[in-house]
Amino acid sequence: MKTNQRIHYPSSEKVYLKGKIHGIEVGVRRVKLLDTVSEVNGEIVKEKNIPVLVYDTSGDYSDSNIPVDITKGLRRLRESWIQQRKDTDQLGAFSSEYCNQRLFDTNLDAIRFPIVHFPRKAKSGKKITQMHYAQQGIITPEMEYVAIRENLQNEELGIPSHITPEFVRDEIAAGRAVLPANPNHPEAEPMIIGTNFLVKINTNIGNSALSSGIDEEVEKAIWSCKWGGDTLMDLSTGDHIHETREWIIRNTPVPVGTVPLYQALEKVDGVIADLSWEIYRDTLIEQCEQGVDYFTIHAGLLRNHILLVKNRTTGIVSRGGSIIGNWMAQHNRENLFYTHFEEICEILAQYDVAVSLGDGLRPGSINDANDAAQFAELSVLGELTKIAWKHGVQVLIEGPGHVPMDKIKANMDEQVRHCHGAPFYTLGPLTTDIAPGYDHITSAIGAAQIAWYGTAMICYVTPKEHLGLPDKEDVRTGVVSYKIAAHAADLAKGHPGVQVRDNALSKARFDFRWKDQFNLSLDPEKALEFYKLGHLDQESDHCTMCGPHFCAMKLTKEMHECAKRS
Amino acid sequence: MKTNQRIHYPSSEKVYLKGKIHGIEVGVRRVKLLDTVSEVNGEIVKEKNIPVLVYDTSGDYSDSNIPVDITKGLRRLRESWIQQRKDTDQLGAFSSEYCNQRLFDTNLDAIRFPIVHFPRKAKSGKKITQMHYAQQGIITPEMEYVAIRENLQNEELGIPSHITPEFVRDEIAAGRAVLPANPNHPEAEPMIIGTNFLVKINTNIGNSALSSGIDEEVEKAIWSCKWGGDTLMDLSTGDHIHETREWIIRNTPVPVGTVPLYQALEKVDGVIADLSWEIYRDTLIEQCEQGVDYFTIHAGLLRNHILLVKNRTTGIVSRGGSIIGNWMAQHNRENLFYTHFEEICEILAQYDVAVSLGDGLRPGSINDANDAAQFAELSVLGELTKIAWKHGVQVLIEGPGHVPMDKIKANMDEQVRHCHGAPFYTLGPLTTDIAPGYDHITSAIGAAQIAWYGTAMICYVTPKEHLGLPDKEDVRTGVVSYKIAAHAADLAKGHPGVQVRDNALSKARFDFRWKDQFNLSLDPEKALEFYKLGHLDQESDHCTMCGPHFCAMKLTKEMHECAKRS
Repeated sequence: MKTNQRIHYPSSEKVYLKGKIHGIEVGVRRVKLLDTVSEVNGEIVKEKNIPVLVYDTSGDYSDSNIPVDITKGLRRLRESWIQQRKDTDQLGAFSSEYCNQRLFDTNLDAIRFPIVHFPRKAKSGKKITQMHYAQQGIITPEMEYVAIRENLQNEELGIPSHITPEFVRDEIAAGRAVLPANPNHPEAEPMIIGTNFLVKINTNIGNSALSSGIDEEVEKAIWSCKWGGDTLMDLSTGDHIHETREWIIRNTPVPVGTVPLYQALEKVDGVIADLSWEIYRDTLIEQCEQGVDYFTIHAGLLRNHILLVKNRTTGIVSRGGSIIGNWMAQHNRENLFYTHFEEICEILAQYDVAVSLGDGLRPGSINDANDAAQFAELSVLGELTKIAWKHGVQVLIEGPGHVPMDKIKANMDEQVRHCHGAPFYTLGPLTTDIAPGYDHITSAIGAAQIAWYGTAMICYVTPKEHLGLPDKEDVRTGVVSYKIAAHAADLAKGHPGVQVRDNALSKARFDFRWKDQFNLSLDPEKALEFYKLGHLDQESDHCTMCGPHFCAMKLTKEMHECAKRS
Repeated sequence: MKTNQRIHYPSSEKVYLKGKIHGIEVGVRRVKLLDTVSEVNGEIVKEKNIPVLVYDTSGDYSDSNIPVDITKGLRRLRESWIQQRKDTDQLGAFSSEYCNQRLFDTNLDAIRFPIVHFPRKAKSGKKITQMHYAQQGIITPEMEYVAIRENLQNEELGIPSHITPEFVRDEIAAGRAVLPANPNHPEAEPMIIGTNFLVKINTNIGNSALSSGIDEEVEKAIWSCKWGGDTLMDLSTGDHIHETREWIIRNTPVPVGTVPLYQALEKVDGVIADLSWEIYRDTLIEQCEQGVDYFTIHAGLLRNHILLVKNRTTGIVSRGGSIIGNWMAQHNRENLFYTHFEEICEILAQYDVAVSLGDGLRPGSINDANDAAQFAELSVLGELTKIAWKHGVQVLIEGPGHVPMDKIKANMDEQVRHCHGAPFYTLGPLTTDIAPGYDHITSAIGAAQIAWYGTAMICYVTPKEHLGLPDKEDVRTGVVSYKIAAHAADLAKGHPGVQVRDNALSKARFDFRWKDQFNLSLDPEKALEFYKLGHLDQESDHCTMCGPHFCAMKLTKEMHECAKRS
């Protein structure tokens, strides 16, 4: 394992913006630009270009002044903030039976993360969720942190923005935004998910019974943060889920989500009938105490929905949905996540773990989009939202899936109608079924659209969707595709300051400042690589596309010169 | 040069659908499917799956019964139809001075296409455009051909469709659709571009002064047809433009477009001031007689528009636009394409070459989208449309460019407002500037959206956009990305029968008929390649994504079994 993992962005430096309320420092990337050089009346004139600040998900990996060691984990940025609130206890042991079993199993010593951090939990009678604080009128350091992050270009360029710490507090209090912040994941930098903020993207990693190991998953997690993943779901289903997750959480500077059901099912050797509330409950506690920031829970899929999927083209395509569907069919009982939902919320509230209400009935094909099954479940998710909020638990609502473009808007509308403003978090949607191998594209089309309509977070899809598990290159392609969709939506929504990067890149393009064009792009390495294939002279004022006679931007400059003279 | 180029689609056969009016045969691809196998009460039950017909742009290359030889060119499918109309003359020589010069230059013998086809031209006093025929109430073989092509799934499955030969005729007569059909390109299979038909995609190939040769361009042309390109623009700007184009036209089964200005400029060694009507006119005739099916002509960019681009971020990014802009600035004269537009139409009408009115002022950055310059030119394109139609010349209107999602609809609306129903043909649009290296994706998002709003044809963008010239792999990626955008739009528009392929593929997915899933996809080779990376057993009922315990579709089946028993 390479312990000193690093992330490098060209011509960029890590700078820190200071909070005004709390003594916080928000790490951002500052892309330095070359001067614009032009000739005016025979004289060379240089014009400075203001550096561009870029929202940075790479944490300490991109700050060469801060030591990084995978075997020690990242700096525990939020630990002192949490301590200062004095509303949590540092426990002397783990509360999960399974967790303790793993901890004392000497066979696992070789693969176990070397440091044990005992967990924190709400003091008896205390509420510790960001939602609760917000409702009490408290602006936490986490809230100020995200307000600064969401405002990068505004202060410097004087662009007005409504996103203040008070606004952040207000959005969280109302449930319109989620700030995932398990005190047991103090390594995570605060970020916010809500329709009035920058569109976020989630990436999925995780091994299956048939695939990769811990090193590879940690590397993928850091890789995802490098390219701009805002949150990370560990969807492991194979061996050593507990240990893999510990390595990932300790080394990931963004919130981590899971589907606890997957691990619970592994604990009963994949025998769905053997799943029980007790096993699931212990799994929730195990993961809360490890530091998972949000759980996908398929609590809205009810017994009476099963008949509704009978004639679907692709049945149930959500793993969690199909498991709980089978459990209900086998036991002839109602969904145990639904019947135990209050208890689930009581547990989650003690660790400020957000619930992401899973859409077990999301359509898996164009033909199944927006059907009765899908919308029946969505309306149950709305009921559950109210219950979670009663406990101060933050809520995300998961959405589809496969949906043709003309049916996407209805998804957003139905979500708004049923879910009381809780943020929507969708997988794509894929806008056609006919392009396996390119589903990062079929889905980026739908994701951009639904994000424009108001979806707060979009879950990436990689080129391997439907075909296999993504490797590192697929993760990169998936993340960049979704950064495109999210940014396109931010532009369309008119998020303040978001166009600054487009403008700076396009100006660089017009100026033939090739390096600046690459450095400002979502994937500078790829842009440079493609450019180099066709260009020997990197500072040329034309390129292989058009050759010297046909460069439109060069000709525009000549035209204006000529018009000036005449 | 490999003379026997072939295109192979797995599990597919070429079949021919016969016309009812004319004795025509329309080649389509028929994808054969495996049976659905299931167990019912302990017995194996097999269910047949109806083969899926796929719109086929690959011409004779995918029919192994028809000989193909690049040095001879494709079968001249439409020749007898054209002859039977008796309204064209077969000339005994070429009318273009430049063409004759090239023909008799023995230095070019080695690279010249070996067969000379003398050109056809309208008999004196005759009108020979598809638009003219349509207005006379004539349903040509070309019109019946496209009616069959646009209706593939309907007859077989009994899906009602409004697309009849009469409907095609009506749309062409009204100018709402274009059927490019230069009699000098009889190798091209008829296709139609219009908002009430399947969304089409154009691909660009062509060498620049700094790049590739004839072999490579012919190979790219065939490659583009393999992946589904509906039309092909040859944008060559380097050496041997004339000879390269001849090879391409003789071997391309789809309509070919060009920007004649590029070649005209080469003829004056790139000296813009030396461009003249005479040189341009001779170039038009040269290309009409070679068989180009449509010309991009930047006739709407006027002198008084130049001031409007002064403060743009990226000025003029259209090559043609920047050339004519410079020409106007240097000569202090109005755009010669505008002032000679009637003469241009007279020439084009004699060869049924369609005009694609270029958007020389399309925005090259998000910041320049929908500005006064862009829309001023668009309104001139509307005026020119009327003039072209007066001559019976078919018209396409070109559109942007770089446009954020929230401004895309306005582009379509303005086009409809100004351009009298002529089909819109856009380049993307790209929905953000910040992703060089991924502009096939930034633009597929915009292209899908604008096509859904009514754009009839979308011009592909490859990953190399802004960075270099596309190679074969880039062409493949660009074409497939745009087939996705076009198909997503067709689904959203509810084009009859278009969902049949999605349904068949999704059913194959649910049935674990992996091979059918791949064979029905836009890129079967890629899907299979990705799948093989993770799967040893190709007929498995689960995959690496989820492992054996977590396959949602397998679990759905078990759930229904269980529900049935209980």
